[in-house]
Amino acid sequence: MQSLEINLPRVHAEVSAAFERYEKALVENDVKVLDELFWNSEHTLRYGIAENLYGYQAISKFRASRPGQALQRRLVNTVVTTYGENFATANTEFLRDQVHGRQSQTWMRTSEGWRVVAAHVSLMPKGS
Amino acid sequence: MQSLEINLPRVHAEVSAAFERYEKALVENDVKVLDELFWNSEHTLRYGIAENLYGYQAISKFRASRPGQALQRRLVNTVVTTYGENFATANTEFLRDQVHGRQSQTWMRTSEGWRVVAAHVSLMPKGS
Repeated sequence: MQSLEINLPRVHAEVSAAFERYEKALVENDVKVLDELFWNSEHTLRYGIAENLYGYQAISKFRASRPGQALQRRLVNTVVTTYGENFATANTEFLRDQVHGRQSQTWMRTSEGWRVVAAHVSLMPKGS
Repeated sequence: MQSLEINLPRVHAEVSAAFERYEKALVENDVKVLDELFWNSEHTLRYGIAENLYGYQAISKFRASRPGQALQRRLVNTVVTTYGENFATANTEFLRDQVHGRQSQTWMRTSEGWRVVAAHVSLMPKGS
């Protein structure tokens, strides 16, 4: 096969904008936008800090019950990489109080726009 | 755009085989195969349980220094999902002694075969 083009500027700008929109919605606990940006599919999956959620419905249900306070955080070492026209990964470390975490997302272009098809959020072990 | 076809059987079988090959190499600490299955690129990224590795070289260096014992584990809730012909995610929970972890990989088809372009491994917090 022909190799996919990495980080086409137009595609990279689109995914970066979607990533930033997600981040804003996260710290503001804007559940509507968070729901919108996850792929509405049984195949969508999100490993959170302390929960493993399989399918869009499980993720949406979790969002609705999540406390909406103290979500502000600082991102470091954010890396958005795009592969061809339709796929991307967005990875970032985040800092909040004494917490150091990592967030990984895989994004796909759909007919409705860019959507997260899989995500993984975790904290670094204490002392590392 | 036309939506990508999800889980085409031929593509799903290819990625599942690559995933299983990776798992076998991991528990056997077969560093050569682990290195082979990661995309040889500065864009490749791996968040491990206690380390954040940016670029193929950093990942390969970590592999070379990793203790090769007690890597056996049991996988549960493994989900491989393919999107069109060239992209896939592989997510799994794993159990090892008292440990409950999660492993996420994003795979891309390259001219050399399927390769991991981003990975995230973490442990569930104790007591969750």
